[in-house]
Parts: sequence; C-alpha cells; structure tokens
Amino acid sequence: MGLPENCGLDLSGKWARGPRDLITDVPGVTVGHATVRGDGVNTGVTAILPHQGDLFREKVTAACSVINGFGKSAGLVQVQELGTIESPILMTNTLSVGTALDAAVRYMLERDPDIRSVNCVVTECNDGSINDIRGLHVTGDHVRQALASCGEDPEEGAVGAGTGMVCLGLKGGIGSASRVVPVDGTDRTVGAMVLSNFGRAGDLVIGGHHYDTRQTDAAPGKDMGSIIIVIATDIPLNERQLGRVAKRAMIALGRAGSFCGNGSGDIAIAFTTADRRPHTSDRAVLDARLLHESAIDDVFEAAVEAVEEAIVSSLYHADTTVGVNGRRYLGLRDFLQTL
Amino acid sequence: MGLPENCGLDLSGKWARGPRDLITDVPGVTVGHATVRGDGVNTGVTAILPHQGDLFREKVTAACSVINGFGKSAGLVQVQELGTIESPILMTNTLSVGTALDAAVRYMLERDPDIRSVNCVVTECNDGSINDIRGLHVTGDHVRQALASCGEDPEEGAVGAGTGMVCLGLKGGIGSASRVVPVDGTDRTVGAMVLSNFGRAGDLVIGGHHYDTRQTDAAPGKDMGSIIIVIATDIPLNERQLGRVAKRAMIALGRAGSFCGNGSGDIAIAFTTADRRPHTSDRAVLDARLLHESAIDDVFEAAVEAVEEAIVSSLYHADTTVGVNGRRYLGLRDFLQTL
Amino acid sequence: MGLPENCGLDLSGKWARGPRDLITDVPGVTVGHATVRGDGVNTGVTAILPHQGDLFREKVTAACSVINGFGKSAGLVQVQELGTIESPILMTNTLSVGTALDAAVRYMLERDPDIRSVNCVVTECNDGSINDIRGLHVTGDHVRQALASCGEDPEEGAVGAGTGMVCLGLKGGIGSASRVVPVDGTDRTVGAMVLSNFGRAGDLVIGGHHYDTRQTDAAPGKDMGSIIIVIATDIPLNERQLGRVAKRAMIALGRAGSFCGNGSGDIAIAFTTADRRPHTSDRAVLDARLLHESAIDDVFEAAVEAVEEAIVSSLYHADTTVGVNGRRYLGLRDFLQTL
Amino acid sequence: MGLPENCGLDLSGKWARGPRDLITDVPGVTVGHATVRGDGVNTGVTAILPHQGDLFREKVTAACSVINGFGKSAGLVQVQELGTIESPILMTNTLSVGTALDAAVRYMLERDPDIRSVNCVVTECNDGSINDIRGLHVTGDHVRQALASCGEDPEEGAVGAGTGMVCLGLKGGIGSASRVVPVDGTDRTVGAMVLSNFGRAGDLVIGGHHYDTRQTDAAPGKDMGSIIIVIATDIPLNERQLGRVAKRAMIALGRAGSFCGNGSGDIAIAFTTADRRPHTSDRAVLDARLLHESAIDDVFEAAVEAVEEAIVSSLYHADTTVGVNGRRYLGLRDFLQTL
Repeated sequence: MGLPENCGLDLSGKWARGPRDLITDVPGVTVGHATVRGDGVNTGVTAILPHQGDLFREKVTAACSVINGFGKSAGLVQVQELGTIESPILMTNTLSVGTALDAAVRYMLERDPDIRSVNCVVTECNDGSINDIRGLHVTGDHVRQALASCGEDPEEGAVGAGTGMVCLGLKGGIGSASRVVPVDGTDRTVGAMVLSNFGRAGDLVIGGHHYDTRQTDAAPGKDMGSIIIVIATDIPLNERQLGRVAKRAMIALGRAGSFCGNGSGDIAIAFTTADRRPHTSDRAVLDARLLHESAIDDVFEAAVEAVEEAIVSSLYHADTTVGVNGRRYLGLRDFLQTL
Repeated sequence: MGLPENCGLDLSGKWARGPRDLITDVPGVTVGHATVRGDGVNTGVTAILPHQGDLFREKVTAACSVINGFGKSAGLVQVQELGTIESPILMTNTLSVGTALDAAVRYMLERDPDIRSVNCVVTECNDGSINDIRGLHVTGDHVRQALASCGEDPEEGAVGAGTGMVCLGLKGGIGSASRVVPVDGTDRTVGAMVLSNFGRAGDLVIGGHHYDTRQTDAAPGKDMGSIIIVIATDIPLNERQLGRVAKRAMIALGRAGSFCGNGSGDIAIAFTTADRRPHTSDRAVLDARLLHESAIDDVFEAAVEAVEEAIVSSLYHADTTVGVNGRRYLGLRDFLQTL
Repeated sequence: MGLPENCGLDLSGKWARGPRDLITDVPGVTVGHATVRGDGVNTGVTAILPHQGDLFREKVTAACSVINGFGKSAGLVQVQELGTIESPILMTNTLSVGTALDAAVRYMLERDPDIRSVNCVVTECNDGSINDIRGLHVTGDHVRQALASCGEDPEEGAVGAGTGMVCLGLKGGIGSASRVVPVDGTDRTVGAMVLSNFGRAGDLVIGGHHYDTRQTDAAPGKDMGSIIIVIATDIPLNERQLGRVAKRAMIALGRAGSFCGNGSGDIAIAFTTADRRPHTSDRAVLDARLLHESAIDDVFEAAVEAVEEAIVSSLYHADTTVGVNGRRYLGLRDFLQTL
Repeated sequence: MGLPENCGLDLSGKWARGPRDLITDVPGVTVGHATVRGDGVNTGVTAILPHQGDLFREKVTAACSVINGFGKSAGLVQVQELGTIESPILMTNTLSVGTALDAAVRYMLERDPDIRSVNCVVTECNDGSINDIRGLHVTGDHVRQALASCGEDPEEGAVGAGTGMVCLGLKGGIGSASRVVPVDGTDRTVGAMVLSNFGRAGDLVIGGHHYDTRQTDAAPGKDMGSIIIVIATDIPLNERQLGRVAKRAMIALGRAGSFCGNGSGDIAIAFTTADRRPHTSDRAVLDARLLHESAIDDVFEAAVEAVEEAIVSSLYHADTTVGVNGRRYLGLRDFLQTL
C-alpha cells in the first residue's frame, strides 16, 4: 500500500501514485514472502515474479546498476550481458544466497524439463543485527513458500526477506510504491520495491526533513547494511535505458539520508514487462520498442519518487523488533510516537 | 571561500571546513579562470592544476565516475584505464572542448620537449542558454590565460567556465568547498569544485529545504545542462577507491534537488596528490598506499558534503546575469532577496 | 578492396566477402581521407560517414568497446550512455584530436543552424615514429577535406590518418574488409575498417602463420601504438548487442599477433544503419529491432573475420615509408618480397 | 604439469615455464578436486586456495574481467567493488553454483566464528553435454572434499569441475601452466588455471596450427560452453592492473580458436599473493605496491602464454569420455592419434 497518504509524512512528489501504490500496480508483477521467525531468528525470503507466464520462455528486458558492489547477489553478470531476466527475483539474507539460488534453480527445472542452463537472480542484505544469520535458517522450502505465495497485495515492513533488516537506525524491511506516468497518452506504471537495510542511525531524511533516529537504542556507528531496489515498469524501454533508470535509485538513497557507505551493498535492478524476449525464435530479427530519450526524464523522476517512497514505506510498515543482540529496533510508526 | 557561514543557508554537515573552504585547501592544488564576456557572449575557461610540479612526469592517481554520460568531456577513457591524470583539468563550454584540448596539448608540449603523447582532461557544460555558444568564442589564448592565472584563491560564481552556466533555474557557475578529515591522527583535506549547470527550475533544495525557483523567469522544462565535479584530496587512496569517492557525488546532486535528468552530462573526477606516479621509473615495483576500506566512509561523507556545499556556493557567488535570450538568471543571493 | 584473393595470404574464414570487400559494402557508409605529407610529415585524417542523410537528425545506433584505454579518443562516453552516434567518425593522430574535434563541431554547426550541442567522435593513433607529431600538422582544412572526399571506394594503406602509422614492425595504416551474413533469408553486411598502429615487430601472424618482421629495421621493443576499429552493419542490433560485437574485435587483434600491450589504445566502435534514431519525435515510443541472441554468433564471427582481414589489408596496401627518424618501415608487400 | 615439452605440440612462447608448469608455481597457491562419476554422471568441483593462511583475515588483491557474461558465477560483483578475494575460488557445473556457494559459506563460517558476512567466489561451466546436469549431483560434501584435497600437484584434464566439460569438439576440463617473469631482478611467477568448456568443434588452433576436430563425433554447431580462467601471480599489482591482466585472457581464447560465442560464459579472474589486505587494521593507511605500467607488458604476455598453454593442457590431459548422450568426446592425445 506504500506510504499512507494520511500518515503525516510528506514526500511531495510530482507523479500520481498507482491504485495499490505497490510494485504490483505494474500488470503481471506479483510478490510473495516467507517469513522465518524463532528464538533469535528473524529472517526470510521475498520473491518477485516479473510476469505470470513462463519466465524462462518469455524473458523480460532488464538491467541492473551496481550502486555499491559490497554485496553477494547472484545472477547480475548475465543480466548485464544479455539484458534479460529469465527467473523470479529473490531476496534473502546474505549467507543464504546459495540456498536460495539452489532452490530457484530447482524451481525452474521443475517447471521446464528442457532447461539445462538458467540464470536465477538472487539478491541479499545482511540481517545479522537482528537475526542469527550464522544459523543459516533459510531453507529451500522457504524459497518455495515465497514463490507459491506471490500475489498482488504483498505485505510490507518486517516480512519475508525484510524480517530482520535494520535501516537508518530503525526497523527496515520490505517497502513498495508506484507512480503513474502517461506515455503517448496512455497511463503506464513505474513501480518499486526495496529491501531496506542501509544507512546510519541519525541520518534518516523524509521529504527533506531530518529525523534524529539516534534517540533509539539502535545506533550503529557505520552506514552499513545494504539495499536492494527493484524497479518494474510496463513502459517500453531497452536494457540501456533500464540501466539508466536503475542508476537513478542512488538519488533516492541520497534523499533518504544515505551517502552509500562502504559496507552497503546497494543494488538496483530494473525490468520492463513490455516486449518480452522469447527463449527461442524462428525469426532472427525481433521487434522491440524503446522510449525516445527525450521522454525518459518522466521515468527517471517517477522511479526516484517511487523508490524514495518505498524506502520510507518499508520503515513505516515495519513493526518494532527486538534483535538477537537484545536491541530494540523501532518501526517508524513507533518512532514517530516518541517525538 | 565556499558558502559563507553567516549566509543564512544551513547545510549542517558533520565535517569541519578547511581554512579556505576551497578545493585549494588540498596542498598544491590551484585554480585559474579566463572569463569571456561580450555582446551575447558569456563563457570562459577554468583550469585546475592538481599539483605545482611537472604533471606529466609526476602524475596524480585518479579516477572518474560517469554519473550521466550525456557529455562531451575528453580524456576520461585513459584516466579509467591507467588510474592517473597527467595534465591540468580544464572546464569550458560544450562546443569548445576541441579548442581547449588543442590548447592543452600545446601547453604540455611547450613545457616538455620529450612529450609525443599526452592525455589532457577537458570537461564541459553547455552554456547555450546565456552564451552565444555557436559563436565558439573560446580561444587557445583563453585556455592559456586560465592556466597562467592558477592560484590558491580562485573566484567562484559566474566566472571562468562558469560564466554562462544556469543551474536549477538560477545562475550557476563555479563553486568550491572543502572538508577536514583526520586520518591516522593527521588532518587531511577533501576538496571539491564544481561547474554547475544542471537541474530544473523549481527543484532547488538546500539543506533539505525546497526553494521554488520557478518564480524567476528562467524556467526550463527539463533537467538539462550538466555538472562537472572535481574532488581532490591528499589522503592516500588508490584509483579504485577514488572511483568510489567520485561515484558518491551523485548523492550530493540528489540532495541539491537533481534526479540526474537525461540531458545532464554529470561527470565526477577524483584525484589524490598522495603518492604521485612517475612517468618513468628505474624500478618496476612502485610503492603506493591506500586506505583500509573501513576508513573510507569518512572520505565518502566529507566528499558528499563538500560537493553539496560547492554546488550551493556556485549559486551563491553567482551574480544575476541576463542571457543571450534576454532572460534574467538570478544569482542565489538575489533570489533569496525575493523571498 | 580488402586483401586481394590472389595475394598469397590465406585467412581462410567462413564468411563470404562483400562485393567491394570494404566497410562501404554496408549501404550508405562512405569513407574519405586527407593525407598530409611533407618534410618529416606523415599524417592525416580519415572520416567515416555512417550514412548519407543528416547524421544529427537521424542518429545511428552504436556502442564501443574500450579494449585498452591508453588512448585519447573523444566522444565515446556519450556513445555508451545514449547508444547512438550523431556525427562522422574521425581518425587522426594522437595530438590532433583537439583540432579534429573542433573542426568536426564546426562542420556540424554549419550543416544545422539549430545545433547547440553535438557529440563528435574523434579517434586517434600515435604516428610519432614516422611523423613529426609535435609539429601538429593537421588542420581543420584537412578534416573538411577528408569529410568532403567521402566515397564508396576509399584507398587503403598509408593514406589519411594511416599515413604515418606503424604496425607489428611494418608500415600500418587504413585497412578495410567486409563479410556477407544472411539474416532471415536476406543477405546483410558486416564491414570493418581499421587504423592499424599496434603490435611489436616480430609478432605478426597471418592466418595462423607467424612472420618475423624483426628482419626489417623497424624494431620497437614494445607493443606500442594503438588500433582503432570501426565495425558497420545493416543488421538490426541494439546497442548492447553492438557492444558485444565491438568487444570481439579483441579476438582479431589476438589472431594478428597482438597481446594488447599496455601502450596500445585499442578502441572498437560498432554501429548499425538499421533503425535510425530520430533527434526529435512526436511519439515517445519508438520502434526498433534487435537480433535474437541465438543468431548473433554469425555476426560475431563475421566481425572477427572482417577485422582480421582489415588489419592485414592495412599492411598489405601500405607502401614502404621512411620515417622522421630515418627508419624504413616496409609495407607488407615489400616485406613478403624479402622472404 | 602443463603441456609436456615433448608432446609434439608447439606453442612457441617467449617466457620460460615454471618448475611445475602449474598455477601452483605461485607460492602458496594450491588446487584440489572432487570428481563425481556415475551412471550418466560426469561432474565435480575444483577449488583454488589463493594462499595457505586465513583468506578472510588476509585477503588477496584481485579483479575480474567478464569477457562474455553469459554465465552464472557468484561473487564477482564484490571482487570488482573492493578489489579483493576473501575465500577459496570454486569451480563447478552451472546448476550447482548454489550448492557450492552454500558449502563455501559454511566452510568459511566453520573456520571463523566472527564471520557474519563473506563473499565466496563460485564459477561454473555447463557440463550438460556429458553430465546429467539436471540431476544436481554435486553436494556440499564434494565441495568440502575438493577444498580438503588442495595441494601443489593437482591433476589436469577430466577431473574435478572439468570431469564433464567439452571444448572445441574435444574433451575439455582442467588445465594449468605457468611462466617465470623477472621483476626488478627477481624471478616471479604468473600462473594460470582454466576450466575449459568453450568453442566450436572444428575451430581448435594450437600454436597457429588449425585442427579439424569435426572428424570426431562431437560436433556442436555452436560456440557454446564457457571458460573460467584464473590467473595467479606473486608480482605486486593493484586491482586495476589485475583487471588489465585478466582482460588479456581473451587474447588466449582467440589464439585457441574461439571467437567468444554468444553462449559462452567467459570469465577471467586474476589475483596477486603480494601485499595481502588485512580484514581489520589499526592504521587507516595501508602500504601496497604496484607495477610501473611500463613493466606490465611482460605480465600481460606471460599471462596470455600461460592461459593459452593451460587451455591446450586441459585438452591434452583429458581422457576420452563418453557422454550421457552416447557421444564420445576424444581427449587431445587420442585425437592426435587419429591424424
């Protein structure tokens, strides 16, 4: 649902929100979570399905921007080389990428008996402040559960891969938002979803207003953690243009108070559901479309707004959580009550 | 002088300013301008000398970050390949890069009879809103004049390459600032200088506060123009690390209100004066130093602060200017009077 | 004309040559030279027009691959960002890039009164072994002359920008070749043109056969110089795919005996004349086409063959030349006589 | 042992081989294999330990070059961002990267109770022509076995990750070689190891001599597969320089007959054991060394030679293998007998 309009926080953007104010406003995109909680355990998996067809047979055009490469994501190299994504996009904790990757491969093999090679995209942030990350509590079953639960109304906050994330001194997690952009007279959508785990306590900025989150007891001295940003759209863009869109996510990080600290693995992935690319084709030449570059500013700006709101929304929807270290990480709603 | 402390604008950063609050606080760095004004002519050249020795014989370690490559700078490819700058860094208008490059080559040839190949760095922004840019009014003499006038107390504002620049609806130009960062107990400096020509009227943000500069009569509908950002330091960093520092300039752009629009050629260059690299060496193995990555956040944050202040300073020091199109571009001081 | 079939040198490729065996077999592509000779002067300019229309209003889709960035080319940053070329592609000597860039800008301004910003592509190799490079003998008139002389039957060898080049111990210069590739049942063309100035004497390999060119008196101890490679095609490829094609030029360098030495600025540029991109457009969404990735191997292989032949052709057509240093650089035809 | 000197195949390089002619000639580097064979199963794991100390606490300086990114390797993004490797380097089949990554993470966690984040490098080629790759026969135990068996005299050929690989129509697999390069009067080593699985039947080239491997019954119509190339050295190089070295591996691929086909995930990784980088440091400034760029050609050329020999060695040591598809893939020794 993104950031509720009546929440008292003003991001004052230019572009209208989509009906759900979620990445799932982009037709065909769904999101699912598996939340893993237990004694000292706060972790999970989040899955994004770029469309509801056969992802391997009908790939989406895609690109990524490695804003800060201190991260362990899998699959990005091929996305950049070929300009496509042919799998779900998974999010989990840093040390569970291998487990999630293996599960994603099995998921693809099960759905298609002809696959002998497939590039699965798995992204991560480090939930070790709240979660017993060394316990490796994510399993293949959790991945399957996240994939099976994909739908159009995903929860936000401390859920799925976001269960154990910490962001700017508060409880982070999953956030999403969307913007409506008219293109050639038709309303199109730019949606964003983030796994927020970045920033230094004390650095939170919302709509230009600085919040001193150091009054909470969660006070890392570093801009640590990471953020994974997924931008989806149904606007026809080619992979170069999607890379430019992904790169603008860094602007949203800056607006939220980050300077992209050394330890923060900040990765943005952008894809379009327009003009899917077939795995095989009788014809060598494929039709595609792209946006005239003079029209791309609207997409840039809408993406920045959606990502910024998604970040704030991830904080807003997160419930206050006590970590494995005994520290209490306030959700933004609870934090605002303390002011 | 950067942004005067009593100017009423608060950027509220973490790091202390250097004594001059200019890029020239980095020992050895000097800056010079040639301002070209005439009937409809508002352009010029700005030069940065990374140190006062023989730049070709003692290169500085360097890197750049192409934030948005819609720009015509020369010399960046070799900077990235070899990790060094071996020439002055020039700034001028978009259509005068060839002239400036030729003049820079001649300058280097004159100073060293053995040079048969040299990589000169020339950067640009488009001053066509205020300047008769098609008139190609910059000459080699202007380049030489800028180089000859390099000193430790350069002017800011509508001067040198900044003479005809427009930024966020106001008069842009040259701005500079610096920050002091202790490293292993010794105070070091991170300095920044910008040629500001980016952003959309109405988007200016200073210290989180939004200013609606559309009330001026300079109201481009696009985030056009560009910005060139030079970051200098005397902290030992290798070229990979300098590239990371340069990349963080994008955060400062976001803080100032930009979303890095399509048409904005945003280029950041970072160099360190530590551990110069000799053109020739008897020994194959050279000593160098770098920063432990865990200490680099201070440099990132100081660089972001210095660049953000340099941007605002470029606006603050710029005098209101009437362009070739008859439009009046307010300097920030004059704009603030209108509020 | 590429390498004559009866020349006794066998490159034994898979793909058929085009009718001219030149880059100009790609419909619309033309090439022109200005050769500058005098006392100790052996230099010049070569121009490629990607098509015969208005390049600025109808840009070609393009990409480049910086194989080794020890080079001073101008314009590549924007080609990578926007995926287009909007100017002629110029080649000249290393120290004349500024002059050529300025002349190219003036050429574009003259042809279009509305241009206020244009990205001109200027590439270079260092002809300082044969040419008084410090004398800066290339002028804007030479650039205009090269542009004015563009046609479909350009000379190869020691001509234009190739006048003073040295390659693998022999006389280098301009070479070109083409290959015919059927796509969806229609014959298409992949053409290549090189400015060859790379490699170490003694390292020449032709069709797998090693030639010890050290018996000539031109024996640099280093793999110096550079090579500029331009690949043109009329096959629909997007800019990512063109980047992949350009990257394969490195394979051809390896086949010709190079290991891409430190000092060699090896740059490959690829463009397609299919699906030109308009400077302005009423519609935001543009149609484009790309090749299904499973069909791109033919383009890769044809490009490698064309570049390899273009390199050998540049040596074959070069006349033996005595350099400013008194050394005699044999053309390949003369060298073969010595065996 | 690399390619035996009396094997009748001449690569005629310039640089002397190391004592073992293996990557393990670089002091501290060891290699281990786990070979997995069964009914239709031909796969495995190969591990490289960059040094024998604590890899996480003392990282090696490293870089990679994505020659062709149609591949699923893990860990490369962080290697590029930080310039270090902090784990073993694993090789396995394409669909087992997740399994190997998970096992690598567990291996690191077991050895260091403080690790909460670690970047493990896992590379892959697709052995699906010979191996029941969809059966996912590699387990964590195989990874541990490969790591436990690391030593200075690893086998080459159809062993470890190379068990099921096919290359240029012959049986591919693991190959290694080394070269001795004097630096400032001291002999240093450049070693290479490859997992060869690339190239089209019929395209094999050894020392410039073409071999028509299509006479075997293994005749894929495409340049498929992939190659992983690891280059190790004890020469002080920084990460930019290591990236340049890694990039030159493409030259060796060209010499061996490849044009880097679309489907070939060609990845080169280079590291130096000189000047390890500590995980933590009391001092912010670290000493490091690099090579004067004018001395790097020797490293480039030695690396190209070592990689080229490693490729041929991988074929030479491979025993003829019958694949899951019933096809017989000749080892190079057996193939040479057929001529």
